[in-house]
Amino acid sequence: MVKKMKNISINKLKDFIGKEVQLNGWIYNLRSVGKIWFAIVRDGTGFVQCVITSNDVSSDVFELESSLTQESSVSVKGIVQEDSRSDLGVEILVKDMEVIHIAEEYPIALKEHGVSFLMDNRHLWLRSKKQYAIMKVRQNVIKSIRDFFDTRDFVLIDSPMFTGNAVEGTTTLFETEYFNRSAYLTQSGQLYQEAGAMAFGKTYCFGPCFRAEKSKTRKHLTEFWMVEPEMAFYDLKDNMDLIEEFIVHIVSQSIENCKEELKILERDITLLEKVKSPFPRITYDEAVKLLHDNGQEFKYGSDFGAPDEELIASKFDSPVMIHSWPHATKAFYMKRDDSDKLALGVDVIAPEGYGEIVGGGQREDDHDTLVKRIEDHGLPLSAFKWYLDLRKYGSVIHSGFGLGLERTVSWICGIDHVRQTIPFPRTMGRLEP
Amino acid sequence: MVKKMKNISINKLKDFIGKEVQLNGWIYNLRSVGKIWFAIVRDGTGFVQCVITSNDVSSDVFELESSLTQESSVSVKGIVQEDSRSDLGVEILVKDMEVIHIAEEYPIALKEHGVSFLMDNRHLWLRSKKQYAIMKVRQNVIKSIRDFFDTRDFVLIDSPMFTGNAVEGTTTLFETEYFNRSAYLTQSGQLYQEAGAMAFGKTYCFGPCFRAEKSKTRKHLTEFWMVEPEMAFYDLKDNMDLIEEFIVHIVSQSIENCKEELKILERDITLLEKVKSPFPRITYDEAVKLLHDNGQEFKYGSDFGAPDEELIASKFDSPVMIHSWPHATKAFYMKRDDSDKLALGVDVIAPEGYGEIVGGGQREDDHDTLVKRIEDHGLPLSAFKWYLDLRKYGSVIHSGFGLGLERTVSWICGIDHVRQTIPFPRTMGRLEP
Repeated sequence: MVKKMKNISINKLKDFIGKEVQLNGWIYNLRSVGKIWFAIVRDGTGFVQCVITSNDVSSDVFELESSLTQESSVSVKGIVQEDSRSDLGVEILVKDMEVIHIAEEYPIALKEHGVSFLMDNRHLWLRSKKQYAIMKVRQNVIKSIRDFFDTRDFVLIDSPMFTGNAVEGTTTLFETEYFNRSAYLTQSGQLYQEAGAMAFGKTYCFGPCFRAEKSKTRKHLTEFWMVEPEMAFYDLKDNMDLIEEFIVHIVSQSIENCKEELKILERDITLLEKVKSPFPRITYDEAVKLLHDNGQEFKYGSDFGAPDEELIASKFDSPVMIHSWPHATKAFYMKRDDSDKLALGVDVIAPEGYGEIVGGGQREDDHDTLVKRIEDHGLPLSAFKWYLDLRKYGSVIHSGFGLGLERTVSWICGIDHVRQTIPFPRTMGRLEP
Repeated sequence: MVKKMKNISINKLKDFIGKEVQLNGWIYNLRSVGKIWFAIVRDGTGFVQCVITSNDVSSDVFELESSLTQESSVSVKGIVQEDSRSDLGVEILVKDMEVIHIAEEYPIALKEHGVSFLMDNRHLWLRSKKQYAIMKVRQNVIKSIRDFFDTRDFVLIDSPMFTGNAVEGTTTLFETEYFNRSAYLTQSGQLYQEAGAMAFGKTYCFGPCFRAEKSKTRKHLTEFWMVEPEMAFYDLKDNMDLIEEFIVHIVSQSIENCKEELKILERDITLLEKVKSPFPRITYDEAVKLLHDNGQEFKYGSDFGAPDEELIASKFDSPVMIHSWPHATKAFYMKRDDSDKLALGVDVIAPEGYGEIVGGGQREDDHDTLVKRIEDHGLPLSAFKWYLDLRKYGSVIHSGFGLGLERTVSWICGIDHVRQTIPFPRTMGRLEP
């Protein structure tokens, strides 16, 4: 039977120096030095060292050292003392400790484990200091994204998860039976945001997206989160200006609000501090020239692969915007430039090899041109009736983009695999826990 | 070909009284009185009346009246004037107007249409004033929910959309093929939040959930958003205290931040202002007695139906918390009271007949008891290995709840059907647009 006491959180301890407090948490680590033993206790708001000496506690409490185990839950009473050696700035001189539950032998010791083992135990792995830091950075990035749009007159228009059409084939779509017909899980909320932008000027959605890709790279999840803003009266340049302001905002908010977390992750913050406006903006043609000038083999007209992105990114401190793509590389709804050869799309490549974090562009706003594009791509017009309506009733120039959350968090944290940046990752080979 | 100009948003016009401004938007309504005509223009931040007189504009612009149509996109230049009769407080004396795109005859006139027709044209219906107001309230409710948890040391732990098991049968689950096995779309992120709470003390998730219910009521969607917090060291009472504080926060933020929107919706705000702590807290037994005392037929041991909820709610101004349920009415993971007969669950019924908006409770924290419950329910233990782990490694008392976003927005807005409270609703019969 588990007992219960009221808890004070570790992140508030600094306000109680010299006072007696009580907190609830879990044993993160134990060590002893002669007649003193130390327990690092975590409670989700931080980690604090608790000092247990035979002078300050009853013998029963002092002898807990022999029975306590990693991850046991405890309630601790003690005096908050300054401790300049710790990141927290304080420690607790324990006066009393009550065991809530003694943990069985914990499968994840504070040593190296294989990633597959850790992923099988993701529900426990989350308790480690590094995963804690990543989740806090993720939360902060999400908040900075939402705050950015909420304070700039964007209306939040959640795009649906279920869609009724699989116009471009079902190979990378998850399909489900939906009351005697088929539904498909969304890969992007963009088309719905275009309806949103015509209704509300500027909108965004921020939710899960799904891709049934048979891909095992360190940048792919079958389920990931994406934010997709869409803006009426924005052309490609306005779009790039907004993307730049947006990414600078995310990075600066991370540096400002996640100091402790980035320290735990041993992130080189000086590299993040170099992210500044203006970002380099190069055309697709210029990017290809850059690759060729650096001896990289690359076929004009294809999309950039990971090694290409890494080479391009290595030439700049800030994210690189690559715009004006051969139209065949981009989707049917992308507006073209006056030459009719280039699509007004833009991809943004993160620094340090973290790859593409943004894809976006200006959308075709002319009804008849869009009909032609849909037909040229061999897509069924009937599926786009509502989308074409947006070009019938007050069509305007508009643009938008999508930013992948997990890749962005990977970059901010300096984590080489996106699977650590989402609480319960889903990949081709993983549906549990 | 659509032309482009820079826009100033309507919600900022008050700062420009007496000055010339330019704004981009869409024609919401047109009317004329002798030698003056009026255009209501919307841009997503508001609606403003534009006054066009033959004295102030060129004859070309004045004659636009005959060609302009509802939903045409325009760029307007003019002087901002005070107008005490309008909600906005200002109007625009037009100096110049440029047509960006003349809309075809708009299918949704400013008159009554059937809901089915409007839902078929949801991508356009969103442009109406009422839908605009609902979406803004929705955005504000979402923001108030996230702010509530973000400022109270909760860590955001997004629960996965895909799950690998269908332990309680597949009848209300959406199933998809997942690389040669089956995956199921989540109905609740709770179990994952329990892992989160053991790692971080207090966590929440807020994302889509899916239910394949063959239900056509005004309270059901196949795809809806739910926020699910989970708290270590919280018992049923702590949980109810938090739910109460949370709901009061959502309602007061809505009243404070959505004055204009609630006015558009003709919401009786005095009813929302009556929502105050403390909420009535009654046991299941007391709720049953209340029904019987009021002549309602109700079989003890069953769940409350819509008419029962409406009768109970009608007796109170604030949401009603019903707790301590016969354990057979609740899920296997619910902790029981000392009598072993009652589950420590709590449902919250919104006022005015808007039905259940919260379900929650204290979770079973003892490993062996939980094993027994799983077996008693005929569920496969293997599927719960990771969930049982949470009771092996530092188990503590914990509780949580889920609040349905769309039902909450329905209640705040005074809208009788949840399908209007989500941008693109998905129901048994609707997958488009």
